[in-house]
Order: sequence, then structure tokens, then C-alpha cells
Amino acid sequence: MRALSFITAAYLAVAACVSGMVSAHAEPPAMRGTGDLGIVIERASGSLLIVDTTERRTLSRLEGLGDLSHASSVFSRDGRFAFVFGRDGGITKVDLLTATIAKRIIQAGNSIGGAISDDGTLVAVANYEPGGVKVFDSETLDEISSIPATWRGGQSKVIGLEDAPGRRFVFSLWDAGETWIADFTKSGPPDVTKFKGIGSQPYDALVTGDGRYYVAGLFGEDGLTVLDLWQSQPQPRRFLQGYGRGETALPVYKMPHLEGWAVAGERLVLPAVGRHEVLWVDIRSFEEVRRTKVHGQPVFAVARPGGRNVWVNFAHPHNDVVQVLDSLDGRIVAELKPGPAVLHMEFTPRGHEVWVSVRDSNVVQIYDARTFEKKAEIPALDPSGIFFTSRAHQTGL
Amino acid sequence: MRALSFITAAYLAVAACVSGMVSAHAEPPAMRGTGDLGIVIERASGSLLIVDTTERRTLSRLEGLGDLSHASSVFSRDGRFAFVFGRDGGITKVDLLTATIAKRIIQAGNSIGGAISDDGTLVAVANYEPGGVKVFDSETLDEISSIPATWRGGQSKVIGLEDAPGRRFVFSLWDAGETWIADFTKSGPPDVTKFKGIGSQPYDALVTGDGRYYVAGLFGEDGLTVLDLWQSQPQPRRFLQGYGRGETALPVYKMPHLEGWAVAGERLVLPAVGRHEVLWVDIRSFEEVRRTKVHGQPVFAVARPGGRNVWVNFAHPHNDVVQVLDSLDGRIVAELKPGPAVLHMEFTPRGHEVWVSVRDSNVVQIYDARTFEKKAEIPALDPSGIFFTSRAHQTGL
Repeated sequence: MRALSFITAAYLAVAACVSGMVSAHAEPPAMRGTGDLGIVIERASGSLLIVDTTERRTLSRLEGLGDLSHASSVFSRDGRFAFVFGRDGGITKVDLLTATIAKRIIQAGNSIGGAISDDGTLVAVANYEPGGVKVFDSETLDEISSIPATWRGGQSKVIGLEDAPGRRFVFSLWDAGETWIADFTKSGPPDVTKFKGIGSQPYDALVTGDGRYYVAGLFGEDGLTVLDLWQSQPQPRRFLQGYGRGETALPVYKMPHLEGWAVAGERLVLPAVGRHEVLWVDIRSFEEVRRTKVHGQPVFAVARPGGRNVWVNFAHPHNDVVQVLDSLDGRIVAELKPGPAVLHMEFTPRGHEVWVSVRDSNVVQIYDARTFEKKAEIPALDPSGIFFTSRAHQTGL
Repeated sequence: MRALSFITAAYLAVAACVSGMVSAHAEPPAMRGTGDLGIVIERASGSLLIVDTTERRTLSRLEGLGDLSHASSVFSRDGRFAFVFGRDGGITKVDLLTATIAKRIIQAGNSIGGAISDDGTLVAVANYEPGGVKVFDSETLDEISSIPATWRGGQSKVIGLEDAPGRRFVFSLWDAGETWIADFTKSGPPDVTKFKGIGSQPYDALVTGDGRYYVAGLFGEDGLTVLDLWQSQPQPRRFLQGYGRGETALPVYKMPHLEGWAVAGERLVLPAVGRHEVLWVDIRSFEEVRRTKVHGQPVFAVARPGGRNVWVNFAHPHNDVVQVLDSLDGRIVAELKPGPAVLHMEFTPRGHEVWVSVRDSNVVQIYDARTFEKKAEIPALDPSGIFFTSRAHQTGL
């Protein structure tokens, strides 16, 4: 407790200092474009920074967003509002222009990320407790639909919630091993299509940027499952079966994330679970074509927009390093040491720069994505997720 | 002359009427997001509409943009400013929030489209007269660089100017049959790499959305040329040689356009020159895999974002129809009749709707891209190109 108090005190001191630095730069609401805005989650303090990616600086800090561990965000299609999903079941609608909370609701006990429909009208959130998906009007945050994740075992935790073209959301049931598609094309309750037997304990999922493939990673078995959403009757298909998940004695320090940015050229790029490897899969055959030995257990393997390179960060105790891979041959072309606890990386929309949150240095670093030169640093309190408004225009993010 | 005067008078009457309708709805500048804004070029009157794609309506009309035949536009990375390239060599920087002209320059006698660098700092324009490329500061429109398209035959017309990752522009020389890459990574004059012998009379080009392939269509011979920009030493490679361009006796009513939206799944989709066909090419092998017989000579073949379908419009006298193709099997799944002179189609960022300009009906129609239901109509004067701010975040548009 003593140590904790000391850490807390030190933390608050840093917070006050950084906060002061930010307020000194805070600005009145201005008429401006929203295409180059973004947010940086400050997980420990329930706050976020509103940032400008053109000038590489913080515009404001906003507080009062609740428990932001594992928080993520989607954006309204005009780029003005961020919908921030907290671990506490909160959805906070943030006005990036006025730096205010436009609306905040607590919609469940424990949630794990959300999505926004392709027309921007529906915000969906996946819940652990109670399990299921809730869907809200993006304007008002009024509840529109609740989809309990009922299976023979009761209520399942829901993970891997993604938007798909045509006002659809796709998500998976951790306990049930199922993937469901909820189609909101018509008004009224959604049409829900259920795919059983997709595998044991799906832990995260992605939709490829073209909206075609929904890929679920499995924790309870050695492999992944893909659904081809372009087919009228998609059939779940396993791939990378027996790639070696759990074969080694390595404890899994942190579950890797799957991201919509996972396609690099003709390959899907996936962080292996519990292994110091990144896996490359042919996007047509879903056969493994290569592995790259990396520095630690990968957490994110994120393709630079366009897919020319893939940037990888790692679980503890290797989380001070980022490696950059070449998508043509899988080689490691650069290794950066941003500092302790690199938690997230976000590319500018056309991939010219990348923002890296370095939690234990209380800093966000900005790199040229091609030369790897560090261009700027922004102070932040325990920064974790970084999300830019251009996500509003991307499928599966 | 009589007929012309009559047409002009009628036109002005319609213009006044539609103009009145628009001004009734015109609004003072507001603090708002820019992610759902766009412009509609009104070619004959040198004006444009500023539109809101969420509410499907016109916010303002702006006049005084010069000769807008064949006009196109790119956007600042904050989504606030449109850079409109006119046929008269004009670049007009339009502030979409205040609906004013922020800056306007005439930089050449006759130009044919432009591009903006991936970091948003440089605006480039391709010129016919005199041939070459000029590059401007996107903030001030001050000239930064002029690249004369000099070859043994003198100055070449330049076409197919596209942005590529890493502050690069790629363009082709119609007269010389060359493709050049101008790299602005360093300050000072660009490094220019020249590829000779890419083929006779390249007439337009595209960069795939991942920034990897630069594809030039050829008018002087039967085929196209691709450069793989991911390679350290790209080699121009012909494909679709002998697909039949010019084999038929059909006059070419309008040169087809190549667009950055040309990738649909594993295929590149290309309008054939002078034939009633759309060509499907495997994106790995660059082999032809299919042809679809279509309603007329295709002008644009534009993949819905994600690539699930391809929408095609046609040259005179078939330009009242749009056909929609299925990307999996190439079949025609829908045929729409928007009306006389369908000139352009623009999808909303995640492809849920598509805006269609129907010049001779003085209207822009908005369709649900999945059900093909018409959702709305907006009056416009001789509408041609439609451009949405989400292009700011796309490579090769």
C-alpha cells in the first residue's frame, strides 16, 4: 500500500504537470476541419486527449470518461464525434470540436468494444456482463436493440464485434463458439444469422478492410476460423490449424489483438498466440505462407495503410520494442525502442506517420512511417489506445 | 447560333430557378464536422455545390471557378478544403465550411487533373499546355516545383497524375510514352525517376488503393502497362496486350477513365477502350480472367468501396444507363436508368450509398448501393464530377 500511495502521489504530480502543460495550450472551440483529429486514451485517469495529426499536438484534455482500461473508439461519419467504449460498460459520445461530453451512458456491467454501422446511424457494443450485444442510435444513444447471446450454456460473453457492409454487425460468442450476423437493413428487430461450431473460445476477430472476410482467433484450440461474407451462404472454415498455439510452454502474457488493418498485399498478417511469431497467410487460399520470428509475443501486428510494412508491438516483458516487417519477404527491416510499455500504434490515414503510445514514459511518439525518424513527442498520462477520425470511413475498425 | 441562344436562355432560366432553391437553403458557416461533406461540379456554369452526405442535401453553391469541364478535386487532410482543378489551368482552393474561395490561381493554359501528397502538404497538377507537372504548397498555393515534361520531341502532355506513398507523385507523358516518379521526400528539387517505353499514348492511369500498382491505359496500342511501386527497381510490364482495343470499327465516343477504386476483390476492373466490355484482370498475375459484355462503351467502372460490386456508366449514345456488376462472377445484377447523360458516380466512404450525376436532367440522384433503391434527388446545374472529403484519406484518388 505504501508503494502504491507513493506511485499514486508521483502519478498525480506528473498528471498535474502534464495537465498544466495541456491547459496552457487549450483553445476555444474553433471552426475547423475534423479529418485530422484523433483521441489518445489516458487509461488510468479516465481521460483522453484530443489531438491534431497535422500539427502533431494536443488540443485539449477531457476528463470523466470512467474506466478506460481496454477502451476503444469509433467515430461519427462527419468526424466530429468519438464514441468511446469503456471497460465499465460506458459509452461516451465526445464532441471533438467543443471538447465536451455530448452524452454518456452506462449500458452494461462490463463491455469489450464496439462498432458503428456503415451508414453511421447505429452504434453497437459487445458485452461480457451480461453477455450480448446492444445497439444504440448514434445521435441520441437511445437503445434500439438488445441481442442476448443466449446458448444452451446460458449467456455467452461476446467478443470480436465488427461492422460489415449493409448495416450489419458480426460478432462471436466466447462461451458458445458461435459467430452471429445481425442485419439491421429493415426497420424493427434485426435478422440474426447464427453460425455454430466456429471453434473453441473465439477471443477476438477482425473484418478485412474490404468487408469480405470475418476472421476469428481461437483460444481454446489451435487455429482460426474465417467466414466469407460475400457468399450468400457463408461456411465457417478453419485455417492455420495446428500452427502451434499452446505447443510451447510459454505463458500467454497478453492476448494478441486482431485488427482490421491486417491485410498487407496478398497476405493476412496475424500475431501468433503464445509464440514469438507473426504468421502470414495467403488471402485467397488461407494457407500459411510464412512465419517471421519476432522479438517477443506479438500484441498488435498492424499493416501500414496500403500494407507495405507491418508494425508489431509485444507483450511484457518485451514491450519496450517495436519491430517493422517488410510485407514482400517478411524480413524485419527496423527495430525501434520507443520505451517501456508500448501499448498501441495508429497510422495517419494514408500511412505517412505512425503514433505510438509509450505508457510508462507518459508520452506518445510520432514517427515517419518510411524513414522511422522520430518527428515529435506529446506528453500523455499512461497513454493506451490512439484512434483517428479517419476510422469513420473504414470498414471493420 | 439561334438554337444556341435559345438553349443558353433556357439554361439560365433553369439555373436561376435551381439557384433560388439552393439559396433558400443556404446557411451561415457553422461549426460542424467535415467528414461527410463533398462537392458537385456544375461544369457549364463554373460553379459547384457543397453537399452534406449524411442529410443528402445541398448546403451552398459557390461560383467563379472558371472552366470546369473535366474538373476534378482532391482534399486537404483535415477535410476542410477542396482543391478543384479546372480545364483552364486553374486551381481553386475552396473552404467548405465558409463556402468561400480561399485562394485561386491560374497555373497553366490547359490542365488535366491533380493530386495531393500523402502528408497533405503538396498539391500537384498535370498540364497539357505547356506540358509538365507543377507542385504547390497546399497552404498557400505558392509554387514549389515545376517539372517540365521534356523529351526528344519537345514538351509532352502529361496525364494520369497520381499520388503514391512517401510524398511521391507518379505521372505519364502522352507524347513520349514514359512514366515518371517525382519523389519529394527531401527538401529541394524532387528526385525524378523516368521509365521509358511504357507504351504508345498513355491516356489515363490509376494507382491501386494500396499504393502498390500504377496502371497506365494506352491509346496508341492494344494494352496497358503496370509498374509495381513496391519494388526497389520497378519494371514496366505490359498486360492485356491484344485485348481488342481498336479491333472493332466502333468510334470511340469518349475515352474511358481509370480510377483508384478499380480493385474489386482479387481483380482489377477496367473499362475497355472502344468496346462494349469491362475487363477483369487478376491482380497478382495481371492476366485477363473474364470479360463482361455491357450496355455500351464504358466510361467509369467504379468498385463500391470494399469491391463487392462494380458500377459502370457509358459513353454517348448509351449514357442514360448504369449497370451494376457482381465482382464474384462478373454478372450484371442490376440496370438503372437515371436519365440522360450520367457523367459520374461517387460512393459514400463505406459504400452504403452512391451519388450519380445526371447532367441533362440537372439532378444528382442518390441510391442505396445494396438495394438500388433511390433515396433522394438534389437539383444541380449540369452536374458532372462528384467528390467527397473522404478522398483526403485515400491513396490514388
